[in-house]
Amino acid sequence: MSRILVINPNSNETVTEGLRQALAVFARPGSPEIFCETLAEGPFGIETQEHVEAVAMPLRRRIEAAEADAFVIACYSDPGLHVCREGTAKPVFGIAECGVLTALARGDRFGVIAIKSRSIPRHIRYLRQMGLMERLAGERALEMSVAESASGEGTLARMIEKGRELRDLDGAGVVVMGCAGMARHRAPLERALGVPVIDPTQAAVAMALGTVLVGA
Amino acid sequence: MSRILVINPNSNETVTEGLRQALAVFARPGSPEIFCETLAEGPFGIETQEHVEAVAMPLRRRIEAAEADAFVIACYSDPGLHVCREGTAKPVFGIAECGVLTALARGDRFGVIAIKSRSIPRHIRYLRQMGLMERLAGERALEMSVAESASGEGTLARMIEKGRELRDLDGAGVVVMGCAGMARHRAPLERALGVPVIDPTQAAVAMALGTVLVGA
Amino acid sequence: MSRILVINPNSNETVTEGLRQALAVFARPGSPEIFCETLAEGPFGIETQEHVEAVAMPLRRRIEAAEADAFVIACYSDPGLHVCREGTAKPVFGIAECGVLTALARGDRFGVIAIKSRSIPRHIRYLRQMGLMERLAGERALEMSVAESASGEGTLARMIEKGRELRDLDGAGVVVMGCAGMARHRAPLERALGVPVIDPTQAAVAMALGTVLVGA
Amino acid sequence: MSRILVINPNSNETVTEGLRQALAVFARPGSPEIFCETLAEGPFGIETQEHVEAVAMPLRRRIEAAEADAFVIACYSDPGLHVCREGTAKPVFGIAECGVLTALARGDRFGVIAIKSRSIPRHIRYLRQMGLMERLAGERALEMSVAESASGEGTLARMIEKGRELRDLDGAGVVVMGCAGMARHRAPLERALGVPVIDPTQAAVAMALGTVLVGA
Amino acid sequence: MSRILVINPNSNETVTEGLRQALAVFARPGSPEIFCETLAEGPFGIETQEHVEAVAMPLRRRIEAAEADAFVIACYSDPGLHVCREGTAKPVFGIAECGVLTALARGDRFGVIAIKSRSIPRHIRYLRQMGLMERLAGERALEMSVAESASGEGTLARMIEKGRELRDLDGAGVVVMGCAGMARHRAPLERALGVPVIDPTQAAVAMALGTVLVGA
Amino acid sequence: MSRILVINPNSNETVTEGLRQALAVFARPGSPEIFCETLAEGPFGIETQEHVEAVAMPLRRRIEAAEADAFVIACYSDPGLHVCREGTAKPVFGIAECGVLTALARGDRFGVIAIKSRSIPRHIRYLRQMGLMERLAGERALEMSVAESASGEGTLARMIEKGRELRDLDGAGVVVMGCAGMARHRAPLERALGVPVIDPTQAAVAMALGTVLVGA
Repeated sequence: MSRILVINPNSNETVTEGLRQALAVFARPGSPEIFCETLAEGPFGIETQEHVEAVAMPLRRRIEAAEADAFVIACYSDPGLHVCREGTAKPVFGIAECGVLTALARGDRFGVIAIKSRSIPRHIRYLRQMGLMERLAGERALEMSVAESASGEGTLARMIEKGRELRDLDGAGVVVMGCAGMARHRAPLERALGVPVIDPTQAAVAMALGTVLVGA
Repeated sequence: MSRILVINPNSNETVTEGLRQALAVFARPGSPEIFCETLAEGPFGIETQEHVEAVAMPLRRRIEAAEADAFVIACYSDPGLHVCREGTAKPVFGIAECGVLTALARGDRFGVIAIKSRSIPRHIRYLRQMGLMERLAGERALEMSVAESASGEGTLARMIEKGRELRDLDGAGVVVMGCAGMARHRAPLERALGVPVIDPTQAAVAMALGTVLVGA
Repeated sequence: MSRILVINPNSNETVTEGLRQALAVFARPGSPEIFCETLAEGPFGIETQEHVEAVAMPLRRRIEAAEADAFVIACYSDPGLHVCREGTAKPVFGIAECGVLTALARGDRFGVIAIKSRSIPRHIRYLRQMGLMERLAGERALEMSVAESASGEGTLARMIEKGRELRDLDGAGVVVMGCAGMARHRAPLERALGVPVIDPTQAAVAMALGTVLVGA
Repeated sequence: MSRILVINPNSNETVTEGLRQALAVFARPGSPEIFCETLAEGPFGIETQEHVEAVAMPLRRRIEAAEADAFVIACYSDPGLHVCREGTAKPVFGIAECGVLTALARGDRFGVIAIKSRSIPRHIRYLRQMGLMERLAGERALEMSVAESASGEGTLARMIEKGRELRDLDGAGVVVMGCAGMARHRAPLERALGVPVIDPTQAAVAMALGTVLVGA
Repeated sequence: MSRILVINPNSNETVTEGLRQALAVFARPGSPEIFCETLAEGPFGIETQEHVEAVAMPLRRRIEAAEADAFVIACYSDPGLHVCREGTAKPVFGIAECGVLTALARGDRFGVIAIKSRSIPRHIRYLRQMGLMERLAGERALEMSVAESASGEGTLARMIEKGRELRDLDGAGVVVMGCAGMARHRAPLERALGVPVIDPTQAAVAMALGTVLVGA
Repeated sequence: MSRILVINPNSNETVTEGLRQALAVFARPGSPEIFCETLAEGPFGIETQEHVEAVAMPLRRRIEAAEADAFVIACYSDPGLHVCREGTAKPVFGIAECGVLTALARGDRFGVIAIKSRSIPRHIRYLRQMGLMERLAGERALEMSVAESASGEGTLARMIEKGRELRDLDGAGVVVMGCAGMARHRAPLERALGVPVIDPTQAAVAMALGTVLVGA
């Protein structure tokens, strides 16, 4: 039985549990097992470049030690993505990369909803590294903490507000939720905006599933 | 039961049968059904811009009439992709677009194996439209007819030769097979090259599956 | 006597008559004849991707059958441009392409006045295909129907308003009128804005004339 | 009677006479007069950046003093183009700019035939300034002096050789002759290559004619 | 004793004196001498393309005649940069180029404070020529004359206002002062904005010093 | 007395000693002290992504603990650059970034001499992140180990060979030595090639010196 390991690089088990729920839609008899785990060494949330760097080598070691046919790093900063790829012959997917690539198959220009505006320069640097800036419509921030955005009452309303700005002011034809912990807002946000909304973890797992099923 | 309709826009039923075999890996109990059909109005092969344009509106009409949760247009020219998207609220995937986007999650720069060199300017124009030229390592042609490439003895050997040139001379870290009818060569080509090889139809169906399972 | 065939791909004969008036400035004894005709199969206006695709093959057939030294497709979506080029050894010009290219010889960054904002994503996708996005200052829509924009009282005033926004807010040094039916507003708009204003049909016919006179 | 002034910025009257012959195709009764003149202050040939800069202000002064409805600077380095534009409300065209823009309406990627390879970095810097590098297939040099290329026996043969390399090795679908003095080779080169060949001075004059006729 | 010649291309000796003060920080025993001089032929200020072109050849002649190990052209339009480089084997630096390149080592996207908005299209054309547009956050103008900006009371306050807009609205992580005469505002502006502020003349001299010390 | 700390992230003290010698040219009475040290936790050479990641946090901690006015990370992979910048208000320079930026002030397109070809995809990814690909002429590898390249007899000859290919085949007008340990080859390589050659550590220290002297 093949298996996809989804690693939450922060140590917040609630986020990992949220991933499990968001990914339950992929469970099928005979399908690769999707296993979500928490990186023990991770910080409680990944909010700074220090957090990003601090989990890179722990992720590498986890991936080298784990038994799986494909790996998904479930944090929108794609920490350690390239060093993990160097450490295994198995495919490794980052959710930011997969979220954006999947968005490009759903609309011409994409918008990103970030949690905080201080992440935006980092995201833009990464989009430039990926060579995908020509398709970026804009990125707008909720200006909430990760904790607030995951649990708060007003999160969906704020996401709809930012999504509308991305759609109407920036020209986004598809919206990427720029965080691993927003999956349950995907469907209502999509209904409210009338354009596709991409949960990046689901996008990455779909790519991982496809890769494993094809036999790569 | 949800359902993904894969349309072969040429009228060559052998190609459609090849798609069925290539996509059998995705069949699972409870998974969306993947249904492959031949576009009756299509030419025997899609080799010119005229062929591309001639199937655009028939594809649109077929998609408007069909019952499915997602559509895949299974020709590496992505004929009619935007007009089909305009005609349905359901997601429509083109295999060239999905093949390249999936490649971008597996390597830094991608190479493309084309059937004939006369398609390369059209492909480059399309890559520029998608804003993805910064990641292109190169494209090289087998210089075979579609028929030869699908059935011939020497096809795999020629693909390995072109794949090595893409890898060693052009710097490709991942290779996309630029045709709907090459799926059975994917695994041996990947073994020979030592870099990921993407079958674009499988890539598109994986994206379609993910989208349908997520509930978009 | 050489001859340039300008085809209005919509079936609105009033638009074709407007083209004749806009192109009368090019008539000279001994100059190539400029002949404007209406595509019988065309829709009344070209406002959707479906309209664009629906006229591609009829345009190809018309161009294959016609006697002319060069062709101009007179719709700002450049429908069927590449398939028409494939079908003839004679030069074929699209007015959107020629309008923008001509603008690039008159100012550093160009703005586009669209009829409706829903066309803007299609135009941007096309500019990206042409590799010309680096010079785009912005595109702004009149939000009028083609009919209104062609005939209405307030059209010029609205064009001046949008042109000023392109010039002052977006930094456009030249403005392209993004429609085949606006030629009579070119001169007053240019006077009001103080920057060059390009009528795309006139721009395309000038390029066609040059090509025919040179003997290509 | 309107009038277009074509200025040869080098002081080689033979080149100016060649321009007159190349532009005779545009003469028509009632058409704007095309008047070619030699810049007295120009060097005998424009081969260095010093030559380019040295003619900028003389061109500006000539254009400020001249009576004309449009100006064409007939040197493939477009010397003084922006300073001339600043000095007059009349349109000023550079032949390199117009040659490349016209090529973009005739093929997807363009190649350039330069006289000497030492000009190529300057041309590439200029193409980057124009934001048109995405469409460049390649540039190859004859490695002849301007004098040789203008008069020599073997020039056409060498242009065909370089044109074939641009077409077959670099993927050019259209070729620009990167010099003001090659017009008489345009037609035979086009016949030999089977792809459009653009003489930049003719391209610029066609754009100037269009602009003047339209009334800008 | 090696020597760096900094040339103020305008004839305003007050500006040259300001350069001397701004560059005094680089003086050290045994360090290359930094010598500032005024270009006698220069206009009082460089505000138009005509001014830019008019000083190109005088700068070339001055550089060819001068004894120095490196040259700095101290005007934010980098007049004559390429023609000067052609005329000497010694390194020649332009302050706009060096200011922007140095900014790229201090922040991800840079903003520019211009004196007047009419310079912005020229600056953008130059950034495109340098291939650096991908890192531009924005450019905003003080709308002051060079004289006002150099001497006026309110200059710093206005620079802080524009710098905040670049930082907060445009996303600039570093700011370049787009003029040779603003050096004394660098430190207070940097303190007010909390992001690095680059004086382009100081940046160019630092690069020149490094080059001379290394022995190039 | 101000001070610049240059950190060699590998633990090879011979490399650090080489840096000291290469940077001795910057020593002047009253100039900021340039202090070179070895990162104790570093691997013996930085040849893989794992090596790059492994030193990121140690570099951050060292920089947070050190007393200095500016920092230079002396490895051509710029390990930990962004996380170090996050950890201090002092400027932090990476030698790859500064080497390339300095090259852009010396020639139009730059070439890079790498030690091994397997680093090239990583370098290209980084150049894309920096938004500088438009200026890259090419990168070519010596195919030597870091040890060989630092000490071997034939290193200079091999660098000249690769430098000539970059200059003549790829069109490089300036060459960057893509390693921290090649400084002593800079001058002879520059003499052999006749185009500027940049040692990236010297380039970074020059930028750091400029920044410290200016008072940032």
